[in-house]
Amino acid sequence: MTFSAQIRQAVEPIWAASMEHPFVKGIGDGTLPLENFRFYIQQDSYYLTRFAKILALGAAKAPDIETTNQFADFAKHTYSAEIGLHEQFSKRLGITAEERALFKPAPTAYAYTSHLYQAGHSGHLGDVIAAVLPCYWLYAEIGDTFQDAAPEEPIYQEWIATYGGKDFQDRVDEQIAHLDKIAAAVSEADRERMKEHFIISSQYEYAFWEMAYQMETWPVPLEK
Amino acid sequence: MTFSAQIRQAVEPIWAASMEHPFVKGIGDGTLPLENFRFYIQQDSYYLTRFAKILALGAAKAPDIETTNQFADFAKHTYSAEIGLHEQFSKRLGITAEERALFKPAPTAYAYTSHLYQAGHSGHLGDVIAAVLPCYWLYAEIGDTFQDAAPEEPIYQEWIATYGGKDFQDRVDEQIAHLDKIAAAVSEADRERMKEHFIISSQYEYAFWEMAYQMETWPVPLEK
Amino acid sequence: MTFSAQIRQAVEPIWAASMEHPFVKGIGDGTLPLENFRFYIQQDSYYLTRFAKILALGAAKAPDIETTNQFADFAKHTYSAEIGLHEQFSKRLGITAEERALFKPAPTAYAYTSHLYQAGHSGHLGDVIAAVLPCYWLYAEIGDTFQDAAPEEPIYQEWIATYGGKDFQDRVDEQIAHLDKIAAAVSEADRERMKEHFIISSQYEYAFWEMAYQMETWPVPLEK
Amino acid sequence: MTFSAQIRQAVEPIWAASMEHPFVKGIGDGTLPLENFRFYIQQDSYYLTRFAKILALGAAKAPDIETTNQFADFAKHTYSAEIGLHEQFSKRLGITAEERALFKPAPTAYAYTSHLYQAGHSGHLGDVIAAVLPCYWLYAEIGDTFQDAAPEEPIYQEWIATYGGKDFQDRVDEQIAHLDKIAAAVSEADRERMKEHFIISSQYEYAFWEMAYQMETWPVPLEK
Repeated sequence: MTFSAQIRQAVEPIWAASMEHPFVKGIGDGTLPLENFRFYIQQDSYYLTRFAKILALGAAKAPDIETTNQFADFAKHTYSAEIGLHEQFSKRLGITAEERALFKPAPTAYAYTSHLYQAGHSGHLGDVIAAVLPCYWLYAEIGDTFQDAAPEEPIYQEWIATYGGKDFQDRVDEQIAHLDKIAAAVSEADRERMKEHFIISSQYEYAFWEMAYQMETWPVPLEK
Repeated sequence: MTFSAQIRQAVEPIWAASMEHPFVKGIGDGTLPLENFRFYIQQDSYYLTRFAKILALGAAKAPDIETTNQFADFAKHTYSAEIGLHEQFSKRLGITAEERALFKPAPTAYAYTSHLYQAGHSGHLGDVIAAVLPCYWLYAEIGDTFQDAAPEEPIYQEWIATYGGKDFQDRVDEQIAHLDKIAAAVSEADRERMKEHFIISSQYEYAFWEMAYQMETWPVPLEK
Repeated sequence: MTFSAQIRQAVEPIWAASMEHPFVKGIGDGTLPLENFRFYIQQDSYYLTRFAKILALGAAKAPDIETTNQFADFAKHTYSAEIGLHEQFSKRLGITAEERALFKPAPTAYAYTSHLYQAGHSGHLGDVIAAVLPCYWLYAEIGDTFQDAAPEEPIYQEWIATYGGKDFQDRVDEQIAHLDKIAAAVSEADRERMKEHFIISSQYEYAFWEMAYQMETWPVPLEK
Repeated sequence: MTFSAQIRQAVEPIWAASMEHPFVKGIGDGTLPLENFRFYIQQDSYYLTRFAKILALGAAKAPDIETTNQFADFAKHTYSAEIGLHEQFSKRLGITAEERALFKPAPTAYAYTSHLYQAGHSGHLGDVIAAVLPCYWLYAEIGDTFQDAAPEEPIYQEWIATYGGKDFQDRVDEQIAHLDKIAAAVSEADRERMKEHFIISSQYEYAFWEMAYQMETWPVPLEK
């Protein structure tokens, strides 16, 4: 079994729980209140900003210039996604420039991206990929699972379409292939650490839906 | 007002909430179930392991060799604390070697240390100090506040004594002095970022008590 | 005077010496032995591989996703340059795949790229730009100075053309604008450090020509 | 054969050349002009400042808190060495505070420490050790080789004594044991990279003597 198949199997309960999460199902059947999606989009926009940086860190840690180029590409795609998807949704969801300026990440969005930093800085390119992969792969599975869903809300339709296409799947496959290639060459301790990063990112993916569903706040509120 | 005084003021509601948290009060009056303290000690042991590394990262980022030496000292003190305090408590709390080997950090312990990594790697020595300071300073305030508390449980008495002494306060004062010196020399954007790190660490201090009080688990349980 | 104008002035003697270096003049008038250029191209290929990584590190250190995107672009341009320029020259200069596999960087190529790493890892985006800028800017000045040179050797003509175009100058101007914007916001100590990185990279640019002119080796030869 | 024995064998020609270098022999027989030693001490002081930081980086990259503590110790020993050895020599060699303030590293001192940064930041603890080890190990061999040398110059006698003692040898042995333990657990590619770091540091050790012997300057002098 490939390394990616092994770690995919290890997270099965977490990904299954994501699929069943009311936030995700609510997008599929259109019952999710827009208020929650609006919260999600703002946090996701923050997330993508840092996600792009981690991909750039992967480019900086790459063993050869082809891989540097490939991860610079991933970073650029993330930028395009952020611009294309979110700026458009932002407008339709009435997210104002002032709101964007005052934005603070919710605990889970902050924790997830800190985890990506930590994984990326402590390890090598394999750690970067293991940590970012659930975001690619799980979203592709969601895009695939809900491809025939027809929520009334056009924003939800578009969101599903974004992750359902072949282009996105190609990017996922590139990352998986890369991960398996690295996993085959490194030590067992490295593979264990990479697996752990993959599991924790999977937990954070689940927690991210929950964060948006609960419109999570920091434990002790501070005056602005 | 010094920078440290400003940021201390900004987090007042969070630190006040820590002082009132049932975990902290339960140590002071001896009502905290040992089971929760046992959970806490294991997470704190993990936390200190990473905390020592961040202090070492501070040593690596220091502008001169005196500061490198000082932060290497902080890292060594953390090691001694981990050994002295926890190994001793571990025995009395019946934490087995097997448990230690199987240990996994709870979400808040993991998120807090990832935050320290992120702050430390993204910024300069000032960011390191701003991020680690609440752990020193808040604990010194707790040690001070509870110095006359006399919980029946001897473990709680000793825990309070650890953070109540002059030695620990000296270390806190060194860090504060260092932070103020750096804050005076850097840009406004740097100070803003340092303040943000200090606030987030303060939130995580609060969340850490809550984690131990609830014996927090990851959202989706995995088979061992 | 802008920060970039100040640091450009500081390195005037070094850049003037580069312009007068027999390697550079020998490209302009066609008298440089191809053997030296061949040596140069191999070292430059290595250099660009690491240069692309430093630009990616800049993308990872960027304060916003637009800048991450911009530096990912710079990294990709470096990749294209490496592929386009060098693979083509490699063929014409008879650089074999075996030679590429056995390649080891000469001391100056190694030291220059280690300097870029050190500058990039120790500081912020401003340090990355200050360290990489001489490579952009000096080459643009060389391209400009030698634009009417007509060396008989077509390889030298093409090499000059690469750095003489408007596209390359645009990239240089982007970097300079970015540097000046950052320099205006950071502390005096930061500016001093950035200036130092710029000066050292300028010394290494000069040393790089000398390295190729002397076909530099490590002090103590090792058996393969 | 242990990994350390393998890499020691690989650098034999370089270390043998160090032993024969007129700077080293000149210390042993007392013929080295004090002017060159004075130059060396200033560069070495700079070198140790950065060396301590790399050891601290090792502490930050350590897999467990015992190793963090051990490398924090190494960093602290380097600090003591810098203070003890150099401040004392500085006085006797008439190195003024003003000179220290105006000090700039010579190219080889700068390149060697940049290499340490690059090795330390790109890899794991094994890369840190492989890169710093020649400085420990070669100096211990020099201390051992010259232990019966009796140069008239007392400064040279003391310098030899510093690296000839059992304390210093113990530190070297600790590092070697650590390196071999890591080397046994990592991938072949990791070992290759670690070996390369060890070889390059060995070249820089040789180059460092030459730097002091020639009182090396940067290629293009700048006005102060």
